[in-house]
Amino acid sequence: MAKLNWGMVGGGEGSQIGPAHRLGAGLDGEFAFVAGALDHRPEQGRDYGQRLGLDADRAYGSWQDMLAGEKDRPDRVDLVTVATPNATHFEITRAFLENGFHVLCEKPMTMTVAEGEELVHLANHTGRICAVNYGYSGYSLVRHMRAMVARGDIGKVRVVVAEFAHGHHADATDADNPRVRWRYDPAQAGVSAQFADCGIHAMHMASFVTGQEVERLSADIVSGIPVRTLEDDAMVNFRMDGGAVGRLWTSSIAIGRQHGLAIQVFGETGGLRWSQEQPNQLYYMPLGQRLQVIERGEGNLSPEADRTSRVTVGHAEGMPLAFGNIYADLAEAIRARKDGRTMDPAANLYPRAEDGLRSMAAVFAVAESGKADGVWVDARPPMFR
Amino acid sequence: MAKLNWGMVGGGEGSQIGPAHRLGAGLDGEFAFVAGALDHRPEQGRDYGQRLGLDADRAYGSWQDMLAGEKDRPDRVDLVTVATPNATHFEITRAFLENGFHVLCEKPMTMTVAEGEELVHLANHTGRICAVNYGYSGYSLVRHMRAMVARGDIGKVRVVVAEFAHGHHADATDADNPRVRWRYDPAQAGVSAQFADCGIHAMHMASFVTGQEVERLSADIVSGIPVRTLEDDAMVNFRMDGGAVGRLWTSSIAIGRQHGLAIQVFGETGGLRWSQEQPNQLYYMPLGQRLQVIERGEGNLSPEADRTSRVTVGHAEGMPLAFGNIYADLAEAIRARKDGRTMDPAANLYPRAEDGLRSMAAVFAVAESGKADGVWVDARPPMFR
Amino acid sequence: MAKLNWGMVGGGEGSQIGPAHRLGAGLDGEFAFVAGALDHRPEQGRDYGQRLGLDADRAYGSWQDMLAGEKDRPDRVDLVTVATPNATHFEITRAFLENGFHVLCEKPMTMTVAEGEELVHLANHTGRICAVNYGYSGYSLVRHMRAMVARGDIGKVRVVVAEFAHGHHADATDADNPRVRWRYDPAQAGVSAQFADCGIHAMHMASFVTGQEVERLSADIVSGIPVRTLEDDAMVNFRMDGGAVGRLWTSSIAIGRQHGLAIQVFGETGGLRWSQEQPNQLYYMPLGQRLQVIERGEGNLSPEADRTSRVTVGHAEGMPLAFGNIYADLAEAIRARKDGRTMDPAANLYPRAEDGLRSMAAVFAVAESGKADGVWVDARPPMFR
Amino acid sequence: MAKLNWGMVGGGEGSQIGPAHRLGAGLDGEFAFVAGALDHRPEQGRDYGQRLGLDADRAYGSWQDMLAGEKDRPDRVDLVTVATPNATHFEITRAFLENGFHVLCEKPMTMTVAEGEELVHLANHTGRICAVNYGYSGYSLVRHMRAMVARGDIGKVRVVVAEFAHGHHADATDADNPRVRWRYDPAQAGVSAQFADCGIHAMHMASFVTGQEVERLSADIVSGIPVRTLEDDAMVNFRMDGGAVGRLWTSSIAIGRQHGLAIQVFGETGGLRWSQEQPNQLYYMPLGQRLQVIERGEGNLSPEADRTSRVTVGHAEGMPLAFGNIYADLAEAIRARKDGRTMDPAANLYPRAEDGLRSMAAVFAVAESGKADGVWVDARPPMFR
Ligand SMILES: NC(=O)c1ccc[n+]([C@@H]2O[C@H](COP(=O)([O-])OP(=O)(O)OC[C@H]3O[C@@H](n4cnc5c(N)ncnc54)[C@H](O)[C@@H]3O)[C@@H](O)[C@H]2O)c1
Ligand SMILES: NC(=O)c1ccc[n+]([C@@H]2O[C@H](COP(=O)([O-])OP(=O)(O)OC[C@H]3O[C@@H](n4cnc5c(N)ncnc54)[C@H](O)[C@@H]3O)[C@@H](O)[C@H]2O)c1
Ligand SMILES: NC(=O)c1ccc[n+]([C@@H]2O[C@H](COP(=O)([O-])OP(=O)(O)OC[C@H]3O[C@@H](n4cnc5c(N)ncnc54)[C@H](O)[C@@H]3O)[C@@H](O)[C@H]2O)c1
Ligand SMILES: NC(=O)c1ccc[n+]([C@@H]2O[C@H](COP(=O)([O-])OP(=O)(O)OC[C@H]3O[C@@H](n4cnc5c(N)ncnc54)[C@H](O)[C@@H]3O)[C@@H](O)[C@H]2O)c1
Repeated sequence: MAKLNWGMVGGGEGSQIGPAHRLGAGLDGEFAFVAGALDHRPEQGRDYGQRLGLDADRAYGSWQDMLAGEKDRPDRVDLVTVATPNATHFEITRAFLENGFHVLCEKPMTMTVAEGEELVHLANHTGRICAVNYGYSGYSLVRHMRAMVARGDIGKVRVVVAEFAHGHHADATDADNPRVRWRYDPAQAGVSAQFADCGIHAMHMASFVTGQEVERLSADIVSGIPVRTLEDDAMVNFRMDGGAVGRLWTSSIAIGRQHGLAIQVFGETGGLRWSQEQPNQLYYMPLGQRLQVIERGEGNLSPEADRTSRVTVGHAEGMPLAFGNIYADLAEAIRARKDGRTMDPAANLYPRAEDGLRSMAAVFAVAESGKADGVWVDARPPMFR
Repeated sequence: MAKLNWGMVGGGEGSQIGPAHRLGAGLDGEFAFVAGALDHRPEQGRDYGQRLGLDADRAYGSWQDMLAGEKDRPDRVDLVTVATPNATHFEITRAFLENGFHVLCEKPMTMTVAEGEELVHLANHTGRICAVNYGYSGYSLVRHMRAMVARGDIGKVRVVVAEFAHGHHADATDADNPRVRWRYDPAQAGVSAQFADCGIHAMHMASFVTGQEVERLSADIVSGIPVRTLEDDAMVNFRMDGGAVGRLWTSSIAIGRQHGLAIQVFGETGGLRWSQEQPNQLYYMPLGQRLQVIERGEGNLSPEADRTSRVTVGHAEGMPLAFGNIYADLAEAIRARKDGRTMDPAANLYPRAEDGLRSMAAVFAVAESGKADGVWVDARPPMFR
Repeated sequence: MAKLNWGMVGGGEGSQIGPAHRLGAGLDGEFAFVAGALDHRPEQGRDYGQRLGLDADRAYGSWQDMLAGEKDRPDRVDLVTVATPNATHFEITRAFLENGFHVLCEKPMTMTVAEGEELVHLANHTGRICAVNYGYSGYSLVRHMRAMVARGDIGKVRVVVAEFAHGHHADATDADNPRVRWRYDPAQAGVSAQFADCGIHAMHMASFVTGQEVERLSADIVSGIPVRTLEDDAMVNFRMDGGAVGRLWTSSIAIGRQHGLAIQVFGETGGLRWSQEQPNQLYYMPLGQRLQVIERGEGNLSPEADRTSRVTVGHAEGMPLAFGNIYADLAEAIRARKDGRTMDPAANLYPRAEDGLRSMAAVFAVAESGKADGVWVDARPPMFR
Repeated sequence: MAKLNWGMVGGGEGSQIGPAHRLGAGLDGEFAFVAGALDHRPEQGRDYGQRLGLDADRAYGSWQDMLAGEKDRPDRVDLVTVATPNATHFEITRAFLENGFHVLCEKPMTMTVAEGEELVHLANHTGRICAVNYGYSGYSLVRHMRAMVARGDIGKVRVVVAEFAHGHHADATDADNPRVRWRYDPAQAGVSAQFADCGIHAMHMASFVTGQEVERLSADIVSGIPVRTLEDDAMVNFRMDGGAVGRLWTSSIAIGRQHGLAIQVFGETGGLRWSQEQPNQLYYMPLGQRLQVIERGEGNLSPEADRTSRVTVGHAEGMPLAFGNIYADLAEAIRARKDGRTMDPAANLYPRAEDGLRSMAAVFAVAESGKADGVWVDARPPMFR
């Protein structure tokens, strides 16, 4: 089976998330990495692309060049990943969609709700895939949690508790470091810092696992380091369209926490608990019974879990494989379109433009509520009200 | 050194918390259990008291009898523990204080703020101890956390995250069970259920550890089991008088959690994490260094930790010893008064009427805010505004 | 119900294990601490005893005085705990047994197998209780493990893996410290150091939980700190009389381990795992199912677990309560004798002279095998061959 | 930089370890998968190879065909992975080495010590790489442990404790299942089952981390399921050439354990602990200080750790990335040879024929000692005595 052609915008040398994409896309041999505009500095991008094995004529100096170069090739890329800084996502994603490419865009998908709606419309209109990289939703046991909830293992969900707390921006003496400072500066980061950066992962996970969408929310935002304009710690309460109550805490000043993305789901007949730092165990208590440990890779879980588990039980799998699962979903989605068949439903789980849009609406809702003493606000994008 | 005389109201046969008090009070041989009115049924109370070793004439049928019987004895009890249902705490505590007894009252101390203020005044006026049993503050490593914060090990506190989540009231089919139902019925439980029962432990701990008091709060309360009038799940954001931001989640429908009382404190130069279910380890990360594990009983901690640690490092200590530490504080406080000396400052940590009063104000604030969409309200009792 | 009278030899001020005994014996109000010869220095012992609340005439200067003083009192002690250094256990225990006292002796019970056999005979002959303080066998979930194995929950036991590893004697620069050195000096410690000190706890636990006795063993002993004559690290393989295979590792140079007493039991239809440092959880996997977490204090465990659980589920219990359970067993055993009735079988679990004797035989077997390149040797005392 | 060409023998559809190799080799884009003889059934192998993207003429029906087909191609494979059943490793590896290919052979490398010595000689003689897949040694924190020991962070190693315990062969009713039975049948598995399958991973890790080799050993082997001829549980004590004492337990009947590969190293001035199931944390206690948690990916670890860490700290990495690190070592080794330069010393850590040989000698030593009541035997291959 011929590989699909894959290209990247952003993710240049030294970038944080670029390597994880290349690991993820390369994992199953579904995608050949054939084109890229990897850096905002044309020369460095071209050079690094070639060092990564791109042909010289497909190691582009800018995304505009890449779009022009790929557009009319018969072997043009089947999927473009956009892993540039946030403010550029919209423009680049739109341009590739308009030209008929499938896109996987990094989060946050856009900077405004209006842009988000435009991408949703565009994806619908063009029939192209516009996926968003909530990559942690690719973990096998996260998929299994979703399947368990969907098939009723814990009954109707009452409460979902999500958190994403780290301490990597806790050093006040480092707050002026440009690598950190821009994140808390509205001119560069928009209306929200920590919620827009990490909180939306946790909120997407709450939706992903429960199968419900956030309707309204109330936020308490603070700047633990006072010189910051935007928040470095936020607590968000929310209500979902299936009746679930949500609590979400996110922080970048939680010294001692590394990457505290965790979720607990409490239903009428059971509870579930999972944490990104130990992703190969899922804790499950059926009402009135004992806590039990579900292991990634154990037999008879769910089609969604089986599809996303790659090595035998007891062998740790990590985040690059979660990213790989998003790419595997996309490969299946693209191939199904090529073959004119329905895609495997267990693969039809990649986050999409609608999710990116909902996050954007939530970001603005958090900022609005946070500024107004936690007043409850509608968290839905206008088009979904 | 002669033992102190100790008596109990409530804590009869089959009661939940009675045994823990007897374990705690008996632990160091400071107190002799000599009097009690243990049950609301006089006969059962007298009988059980005698089975526990009380002399027949001090195994009383009611607290009124006990008060009358003890009042004028030369060997009257030095301390009375009140471990009856919530609605009776105020009346019993007041009566004993008025007659010059020291009292350790179970939480919640009263049902109203006014009652709370009255007990504070009474304690001040009579010069008697009116302690409140936030027993988890007796754990050795909780004491050490407090000492670390106080001596500046983590700098100024930015955020404190507390939780107390369990799943023991999650079964909707059991919601009508009288042992559970009364807790969610305002006629019997007052204005709050889960926050008043468990949340105040977490909030007291936040104050205890940070050395700051809650000023205002915003609450989101829900009844996950719809037939309940009062909340079984609550999220409370708060601000403290030293500038700390607080987040507190409490739930009784969190299936899979047993007794999830946990606290995280994040300061300018370090973070701390502790959990009641594994109380012998405290996780500490100094800014820019590694997470380290502080063990209960290790050398060179703090006077507060050393005083409350009873067996050598590596041997688990549990909750009855935490209760024992509250009693040890009280023994020292009582003896110091008898001896006319200043008490050991490391023992001067038992929770007191002021703490009980603050909790009561917080309970009403949570109820008020919760009913008003999370509006921020003053959480201080009038007398501390 | 009148309290039983309790006395102690050893456990003076500053001793390591004395406080745990007083905590344990005092826990349930079954025993009144009325007599003691607490220190090898008569004056200090008498003084400390009185500070602990003993009457002056029962705060003895030596165990001989105590024996003489108690022997003919009508209210003489019902139980004597011997918590002196190892070399004195035999003589003291023998003397009290001969005079009709029940004794709880610290481990190791004796210094030789012959002495151990003598105490077994003496206990049988006098009809007195001669218990040995393998206190960790008092933990509620250890009792439950034993009950589970006994009722067949994991089928026939195939392998039991026990360990007791700490790092408190790992510092070579401290090896000359007299508090440490004597332990590795055969003149003072006998034929074995770490195995005799800690290994026998793990081996007793293996027997206690499986209900089987060690028949033969092979040992590999080493002195990680070369100046030591006796071992600070030992690995012992053994075979039990019910067919189980045993593996036991003990070390005092395992830096990073605090008190690593842990046990795993693998049977034909299930496995169990427990660790002293987190004693309130027991991990259980039934064959072909999932790992589940048994919580101390949960409902419907076993009579043995219920009897030894004191506070509600989710509240940590620790080692002093385990010791308390040994004392509770003894109280029941003594009362049953007084009342002329059969004791509660769920309490009939305190370790006894036979266990102390078996440990002594194992100690000599380990020393013998260890010196002979791990040759398999009979680990049974002569009287049980 | 042109990719290296990579081929595989074995690892066909449904094989256990094949996917992990393809994940690992593909991870960094260093290797292009271009040739394979994947299955013992020629048709299936050819078919599956093509489905995995091999050209039809390089999807071979047998390894002999593959050798013949590749031998004289200018673009022949740079590395051949041998992932067939154990008994075929020697013949296939030898053939490819003799023809000048670099080989990565699965463990155990051979069935006899003589074969192992032959491969070592052959590798030396031909100058080809003969690597052996002790893949767990590729984990970033395992590399870091090795670096820490090498640079003296824990002083001279006193004791190393390794284990690899699982329960996947514990079901006696499944013992006749052919997928399980052959492993315990000497006719097919050779002289050892569980030690040869899993124990050698643990033993290699002990050597890898300490930088010492096993000299002699004593083994206690048992068949927990009696119908088995070979062992399903073994305890091995050993001595290493740098003075370290080793203890190694391995089991396949440890119900409740999934993949219990873990190692503890205790030196004169520190201790280390790591477990394969939670591979992103390393526990380290410097003598006299506290236990600290080293996180994979944290800054300033060691060149060996940095080189093998791919995603930012806090994001879990798993076993496929460990395998990837072995392949990354090999890519560097092959490229260095091509470029005529010295390879990066931090990559020069892949296990090699000498390690495979030593394991083979240990397997026979364990079998010999195990049959002779644990007599101590030389564990070194003749050529290293
Ligand atoms: N899904 C996740 O878990 C996750 C994690 C981290 C980052 N991210 C997201 O990924 C994106 C990138 O984050 P990062 O941390 O890797 O940033 P980074 O600053 O480390 O790297 C950004 C890269 O994009 C390149 N670039 C910038 N502008 C470009 C342009 N116009 N054309 C081509 N290349 C350009 C830069 O040269 C650089 O190589 C962000 O949107 C971030 O939110 C997502
Ligand atoms: N500090 C803690 O951690 C903690 C934990 C549990 C309970 N509590 C508190 O302890 C109190 C008791 O709770 P519980 O769960 O043990 O209740 P319970 O219902 O189990 O026991 C109450 C006991 O009080 C006796 N009693 C009732 N009225 C009496 C009266 N007028 N005079 C004498 N005795 C009377 C009852 O007979 C019974 O024995 C409550 O206020 C509760 O909030 C505190
Ligand atoms: N079961 C357990 O878990 C456990 C734990 C620790 C110690 N132990 C055992 O307890 C015993 C005591 O150990 P320790 O660590 O407390 O020792 P220690 O040296 O700390 O204390 C021994 C005490 O015994 C007193 N003593 C010595 N000789 C005496 C005599 N002839 N008469 C009266 N008192 C005398 C000493 O003055 C001292 O107070 C040992 O046998 C030890 O093996 C058992
Ligand atoms: N390093 C590790 O952690 C690890 C883990 C598991 C297995 N292994 C080793 O990997 C090897 C394979 O184990 P497995 O569990 O994957 O076995 P398996 O039986 O699942 O797969 C073996 C594969 O090899 C193929 N094969 C057999 N004979 C062949 C031949 N002559 N030519 C070509 N292909 C042939 C089979 O068709 C099958 O696809 C074993 O040596 C095993 O010890 C290593």
